Amino acid sequence: MLEHINISDFKDLVGKEITGCYLVTAKELRDGKNDKFLRIRLQDSSGSLAAYVWKDAIKINDLFSEGDVVRVTATVNNYKEQIQLNVAQVRYADKSEYNLDEFISRSDKDPEVMAEQLFGFVDKVENVWLNKLLRSIFEDKELFALFLEAPAAKSWHHNYMHGLLEHTVSVATLCEFVSGLYPVNRNLLLTGALLHDLGKVFEYSTKPVIDFTEIGRLVGHLSLCDQFICEKARLITGFPAEILLNLRHMILAHHGEYEKASVRLPQTLEALVLHLCDNLDAQSVGVAQMLAASPETAVWTEFDKLNNRYYHLTKI
Amino acid sequence: MLEHINISDFKDLVGKEITGCYLVTAKELRDGKNDKFLRIRLQDSSGSLAAYVWKDAIKINDLFSEGDVVRVTATVNNYKEQIQLNVAQVRYADKSEYNLDEFISRSDKDPEVMAEQLFGFVDKVENVWLNKLLRSIFEDKELFALFLEAPAAKSWHHNYMHGLLEHTVSVATLCEFVSGLYPVNRNLLLTGALLHDLGKVFEYSTKPVIDFTEIGRLVGHLSLCDQFICEKARLITGFPAEILLNLRHMILAHHGEYEKASVRLPQTLEALVLHLCDNLDAQSVGVAQMLAASPETAVWTEFDKLNNRYYHLTKI
Amino acid sequence: MLEHINISDFKDLVGKEITGCYLVTAKELRDGKNDKFLRIRLQDSSGSLAAYVWKDAIKINDLFSEGDVVRVTATVNNYKEQIQLNVAQVRYADKSEYNLDEFISRSDKDPEVMAEQLFGFVDKVENVWLNKLLRSIFEDKELFALFLEAPAAKSWHHNYMHGLLEHTVSVATLCEFVSGLYPVNRNLLLTGALLHDLGKVFEYSTKPVIDFTEIGRLVGHLSLCDQFICEKARLITGFPAEILLNLRHMILAHHGEYEKASVRLPQTLEALVLHLCDNLDAQSVGVAQMLAASPETAVWTEFDKLNNRYYHLTKI
Amino acid sequence: MLEHINISDFKDLVGKEITGCYLVTAKELRDGKNDKFLRIRLQDSSGSLAAYVWKDAIKINDLFSEGDVVRVTATVNNYKEQIQLNVAQVRYADKSEYNLDEFISRSDKDPEVMAEQLFGFVDKVENVWLNKLLRSIFEDKELFALFLEAPAAKSWHHNYMHGLLEHTVSVATLCEFVSGLYPVNRNLLLTGALLHDLGKVFEYSTKPVIDFTEIGRLVGHLSLCDQFICEKARLITGFPAEILLNLRHMILAHHGEYEKASVRLPQTLEALVLHLCDNLDAQSVGVAQMLAASPETAVWTEFDKLNNRYYHLTKI
Amino acid sequence: MLEHINISDFKDLVGKEITGCYLVTAKELRDGKNDKFLRIRLQDSSGSLAAYVWKDAIKINDLFSEGDVVRVTATVNNYKEQIQLNVAQVRYADKSEYNLDEFISRSDKDPEVMAEQLFGFVDKVENVWLNKLLRSIFEDKELFALFLEAPAAKSWHHNYMHGLLEHTVSVATLCEFVSGLYPVNRNLLLTGALLHDLGKVFEYSTKPVIDFTEIGRLVGHLSLCDQFICEKARLITGFPAEILLNLRHMILAHHGEYEKASVRLPQTLEALVLHLCDNLDAQSVGVAQMLAASPETAVWTEFDKLNNRYYHLTKI
Amino acid sequence: MLEHINISDFKDLVGKEITGCYLVTAKELRDGKNDKFLRIRLQDSSGSLAAYVWKDAIKINDLFSEGDVVRVTATVNNYKEQIQLNVAQVRYADKSEYNLDEFISRSDKDPEVMAEQLFGFVDKVENVWLNKLLRSIFEDKELFALFLEAPAAKSWHHNYMHGLLEHTVSVATLCEFVSGLYPVNRNLLLTGALLHDLGKVFEYSTKPVIDFTEIGRLVGHLSLCDQFICEKARLITGFPAEILLNLRHMILAHHGEYEKASVRLPQTLEALVLHLCDNLDAQSVGVAQMLAASPETAVWTEFDKLNNRYYHLTKI
Repeated sequence: MLEHINISDFKDLVGKEITGCYLVTAKELRDGKNDKFLRIRLQDSSGSLAAYVWKDAIKINDLFSEGDVVRVTATVNNYKEQIQLNVAQVRYADKSEYNLDEFISRSDKDPEVMAEQLFGFVDKVENVWLNKLLRSIFEDKELFALFLEAPAAKSWHHNYMHGLLEHTVSVATLCEFVSGLYPVNRNLLLTGALLHDLGKVFEYSTKPVIDFTEIGRLVGHLSLCDQFICEKARLITGFPAEILLNLRHMILAHHGEYEKASVRLPQTLEALVLHLCDNLDAQSVGVAQMLAASPETAVWTEFDKLNNRYYHLTKI
Repeated sequence: MLEHINISDFKDLVGKEITGCYLVTAKELRDGKNDKFLRIRLQDSSGSLAAYVWKDAIKINDLFSEGDVVRVTATVNNYKEQIQLNVAQVRYADKSEYNLDEFISRSDKDPEVMAEQLFGFVDKVENVWLNKLLRSIFEDKELFALFLEAPAAKSWHHNYMHGLLEHTVSVATLCEFVSGLYPVNRNLLLTGALLHDLGKVFEYSTKPVIDFTEIGRLVGHLSLCDQFICEKARLITGFPAEILLNLRHMILAHHGEYEKASVRLPQTLEALVLHLCDNLDAQSVGVAQMLAASPETAVWTEFDKLNNRYYHLTKI
Repeated sequence: MLEHINISDFKDLVGKEITGCYLVTAKELRDGKNDKFLRIRLQDSSGSLAAYVWKDAIKINDLFSEGDVVRVTATVNNYKEQIQLNVAQVRYADKSEYNLDEFISRSDKDPEVMAEQLFGFVDKVENVWLNKLLRSIFEDKELFALFLEAPAAKSWHHNYMHGLLEHTVSVATLCEFVSGLYPVNRNLLLTGALLHDLGKVFEYSTKPVIDFTEIGRLVGHLSLCDQFICEKARLITGFPAEILLNLRHMILAHHGEYEKASVRLPQTLEALVLHLCDNLDAQSVGVAQMLAASPETAVWTEFDKLNNRYYHLTKI
Repeated sequence: MLEHINISDFKDLVGKEITGCYLVTAKELRDGKNDKFLRIRLQDSSGSLAAYVWKDAIKINDLFSEGDVVRVTATVNNYKEQIQLNVAQVRYADKSEYNLDEFISRSDKDPEVMAEQLFGFVDKVENVWLNKLLRSIFEDKELFALFLEAPAAKSWHHNYMHGLLEHTVSVATLCEFVSGLYPVNRNLLLTGALLHDLGKVFEYSTKPVIDFTEIGRLVGHLSLCDQFICEKARLITGFPAEILLNLRHMILAHHGEYEKASVRLPQTLEALVLHLCDNLDAQSVGVAQMLAASPETAVWTEFDKLNNRYYHLTKI
Repeated sequence: MLEHINISDFKDLVGKEITGCYLVTAKELRDGKNDKFLRIRLQDSSGSLAAYVWKDAIKINDLFSEGDVVRVTATVNNYKEQIQLNVAQVRYADKSEYNLDEFISRSDKDPEVMAEQLFGFVDKVENVWLNKLLRSIFEDKELFALFLEAPAAKSWHHNYMHGLLEHTVSVATLCEFVSGLYPVNRNLLLTGALLHDLGKVFEYSTKPVIDFTEIGRLVGHLSLCDQFICEKARLITGFPAEILLNLRHMILAHHGEYEKASVRLPQTLEALVLHLCDNLDAQSVGVAQMLAASPETAVWTEFDKLNNRYYHLTKI
Repeated sequence: MLEHINISDFKDLVGKEITGCYLVTAKELRDGKNDKFLRIRLQDSSGSLAAYVWKDAIKINDLFSEGDVVRVTATVNNYKEQIQLNVAQVRYADKSEYNLDEFISRSDKDPEVMAEQLFGFVDKVENVWLNKLLRSIFEDKELFALFLEAPAAKSWHHNYMHGLLEHTVSVATLCEFVSGLYPVNRNLLLTGALLHDLGKVFEYSTKPVIDFTEIGRLVGHLSLCDQFICEKARLITGFPAEILLNLRHMILAHHGEYEKASVRLPQTLEALVLHLCDNLDAQSVGVAQMLAASPETAVWTEFDKLNNRYYHLTKI
């Protein structure tokens, strides 16, 4: 396997030829002056850029699809301050030729640091039953490997590798702080924060493009998590029914409103606070991602169809 | 314990004195010509009527509350074609003095006949896995005893003893018929019909007044049923994941829309048809109950606040 | 006029040249290796397929539009298990050259059998006034010819020839069955089922593409049907006002909710049940059509924008 | 029959005894210092006031109901600037003892003047067909007698005798003015304005309390009007279909939105303008009525539940 | 003026006679065994309790209204673990007899401590313009006196004296914490938090019962605050337009959605985060208040009509 | 600078060559028989038309963008009754080469006549304070120059130069007429009509394409107007608070519903009537514009996505 060169490092290779495997996220046959050319967008975990195939574009167009990984030999060039590739050769790449993890975007934060933070929160849960439950879940190595990698969404907020971990740690951070402000059961709230989106491990498939699994679409991450927690709690002899009931309610109610596919309306203060902290993190990161994706000179972001507005890039 | 006399049989006892235990569903201290009197509404499973306490009303008013069962000695009389009681004595009744089942309204239909119909549908499910699952559930005697008694709602449709069984048999009847009209998997649809509201066994407490349990409010019958089915399926070695997935989806989606507290939107034809048949039975029986409760001379029912309309008593 | 060859029969003609008239439902000028080519989609009542014009594509592109019928001479070929046409000649076809009925899709079911079923339901309506009204409508040959052909929708469910008849028979079938389960007036319910969508005869024009008529858009099929029934009832001396009132209400309320363009909310049990059965058939057939249109290997259908979901192809 | 004394004239009769028949709109048994007393609200077309029965209140309470007309003998008195009655005798009044028209509130405006205005608008409709249609309707004396009396609503705006005429003239006044501002067909718009609420003649019964008729609830005034206009147009040989279509659309669309029980959405400029002028008059008069009903010293009206707000009494 | 005895201290005075002025929040004439009695609810800033007038109840009933302050002489007694008053004398109290501040409930937290916290946040705003603006507002003694006292709502959350200060400090606490998590302009966010509800100073009148002012209803606290900030900023020479624009936007958008009477949708990350933190505090405190108001033995709170649910008292 | 030739005058120049500057509102590279060609849409204040660049289309395509003004030399020709341009030369035009006002569409009505009408309404406001306020605003020449030019919307109704003035005069015309029908304060209503959309002067930038300003998006025209009026009123010594309050309310409430971004709900009759007249003008003109933009032979307009319907071109 070739050593992978990050797209974000191409800026130091202008004029050089590179060879490597990259994910195709868009492909378009365009009309050039005399002939067709092919414009593709290549992505790896460090960023994305445009690449141009000037020869045999029509034929090459049929060799691969969006979502495939291709092996490219190309010259790096700098056109109007944009790094691009002029492609000499490109073909469908076999799975043996690359490491899938290189092609999806991932959290800016170090997953190991975040994992440590997560276990720090687990340690802070003093209720013996809740602590036992959390350990039985997060110390399951197979599951944790999936949890560590998972995104928190297909689009909108945290839609990248480690996004679920990042979001979970953020919500736990918020919930811990907030538990000092309102008369909540801190152990319960923290546990809910740590587990609330666990079902997303089963809801998304992520290699290389994030999409819903069948069970994700037909059952959904709230019920998947509820079901999973019930199973884990059953394995702990004597797990108190009242605690499990409260925990299940927090999971099932964390979307806050039926219209947002919440299974229940929040009916405990802990469930309400969890929902509000989850929402605070999801919305803030979602908008922060849109702002970060805007060119430096922009005054407004792209239009956010989901929320029906543009965002203004505060510059004061 | 006294032998219970049904309220519906009082019409044959006009002028006689009766003694028995009845559920108080309403109580009001009213102004009489010279003094206060107490008007209470008594109910048993056969019907309800008004009873009047003319003496010591203020004192007696404090002896029991709505929702209590009282022991009454009273004379039956007929006032303007309405059977009433003039109460001589009334006091709070001890649980040992009566059989709770006498005081709640129940389905017009014979539960044993309906149970037989239910098992008839079970027999029609030919898929070996689904049949095994249904048997493991309905042949659990303890559970079935609860299922047999349970209501299907607190208010609106089938809000009486055996209501859940009656509704389940109706939905199965509709689904079986409809499976001849559309390209559905008949085994799956029938199983979904038989199990869709099973979670209500845990959602309501029914003695003597129907109300939500704690777990009913905090978790809800869709998730309770989903959870229960997962547990039962796990006990059947080799139960196919794809079948379980389809069944869970039907349970979780049978309310049809998020706004109606559906956990999922119906995404299979079976889930959609189950939702529509469930809705057809619930709505039709709900309105039929309102029409049946109207006096014979009425042209319109009481106002249905939930659906924002009166219903017209068709008379042609 | 040439004898029409059904598109569904092309699979037996691979390698042969055919000549015939077909409806163009899509047309796109595409970039080929060296030149433009034209890809069109042709349809008749038996199915549809892709056809390719490789020569003079730009010029030929201007000769006809989507929605036109063209006369084609082409070779049938089989490309990756898909039957296609390589077009040698194609031109706009004159109305004298073909029979319009060949180009629209139609119900899988035999219209004569369905018509018989319809009259069977008419016979079951025992109320003399309702029976007379039904006969005065369905025995009007001119009207019945239109009714027999009409689609039940422009898109979504039953959007094909005889679709209105198919839907009407289905709703009547459901209503007849359901009238055994709830305390409805069976004669009234059946009559409502048979007449509820009659106004669609005037709401759509269907040759060759289904679209709304002016009166369809400006008045709508509920009011058109109401108006029509009033006229027909007036011609029957002594037609009871109460019956007409109930029938009008069923027609005007069968969409169930104001948001779905219902003129009234269902305020009788018959109107409610009719609405629910209508909805059951429309939704089930709509989804069944989407499932049937999916390739055999698909796991999910196309996205259903109207209902905001994908459907899963149940395979158990 | 006694000569009726208007409630609005009682202020000149303080200290005198009066006898007359009045409509009871509210009745309440209250606790007095030593005994119960009965407080009733009496109404005639000129206004309403409170009346008190101090003796035998419990017995008299049973003699009549809200909605009945009673015959009262009472002394007029002035208590804290409020005219009241101290009742000496009161009993249910027979229909022969009074003229029903005296008991309902009516428009402040002279119906004959308004009728003349209405016919003035009819004369301004120059299109021969529309003019003929309007004459065939408004010159039908029996119908016009009903139209002249009818209210335009049960509650909210114009909920009094001649209210329909008053509203119709207002909407026509607005539409005539507006037809000078926008490119509408003035004849069509004026005709729509004059006929748009005609169906209310059949939708309400008004003696003595305004309520819905059976046909009003089950069919509604939009469809009733549509149906009526179709019948009238059919009687005019050669009435152009296109004109009738436009007129029907205006009637069916004048509520503007499906959520407000409009049969159609306005799809012509005339239908849209009619809807907006209808709405302007209904809303403005509804709020003006609320303001007029407030005591002179009030700063805010009663809470308007329908529109979820208080109104401020502008005083500048 | 008598020295005021707090209602919360009555428990130490059982059997003693007290005299003092208290606010009447409810009043009801009830039927006693032989006679009417008057049950009133008295409130001061420390709590509320029931008081009974057993003699001359009907006459005394007319002497004052709900919302009045009365002077009471009464004996404290303890009935079934509830502290009550048996009233000997009660009359309307003149404003000179009491200090209004004693009669309204107030925050549990010390206003001076909270004021210090508020100024602590002001000090943390490093941007010179924003700091100047905050000082020009909060150092205005007259305004600050009002701000210190004001409630943050009429009902729901923080509906008590100092509630606005308490809510403001909480939102600032949240915003400061959150500014460490997301890429916001901390100075701007903190300033928005401190000023967002300032308009409520003018929106409510609070003595003794919290209600809307005329300008509160007709203009609203968002516009009042916007207007106030513009005026204050104009007085600071050179105040940058871009900063004012961002600040105004935060104020005008902090309700988050048009349906919740937000003037704007949040279109900057700071405006969004402010909205979410405001919401987090308002909702959490609102529910915490409902839970705190429930008896210790309760399992569920009263029904929350605004949010359509009961809340469960977590007890684990 | 060349003398500008109006696009609407091209019909008299068929076969001639013209040179001039025009705004590009659309640009598309299309496939011609042998080569690419460029189709652009050019606009000035008198209309718009299509122009074709047949040579060097790909290269020329890069020389300018939509929204630019270009200098064109072209031959006018008439193709199937459509006036078009065959472009010989085209290049980006410098701001010194043209007068921006020539390129945006403008009201059909003479702005001077409308300005006179506006001042006529100002004269009719008899309340001395309101009159003074209006004069202080409309006699500010700098502001009035902006007001005279401004559009009333970006899309939908009055989205052209002088549109704000035209809309303002229309709403004032309606309000004046309506003030004769309902018990409103005429002075207040007229003032509200004249000022209600004044904030749009600051909300839109208009050269050459209408778009939102930053302050327009972040603050909105309701708050901008409210703020502006407060400032102007402060400059008039003794301006009565009650009048200002009423006026502010009208401005803040004129959108009528929170969902339509109204800051307040109309709570005075004047605010309600202003909202309804504003709506009447906006909707009627919006639909009239759509109808006017349809070809003469059309039966239906383009689909109106905002209002979810087609409009029918009334032809009677």
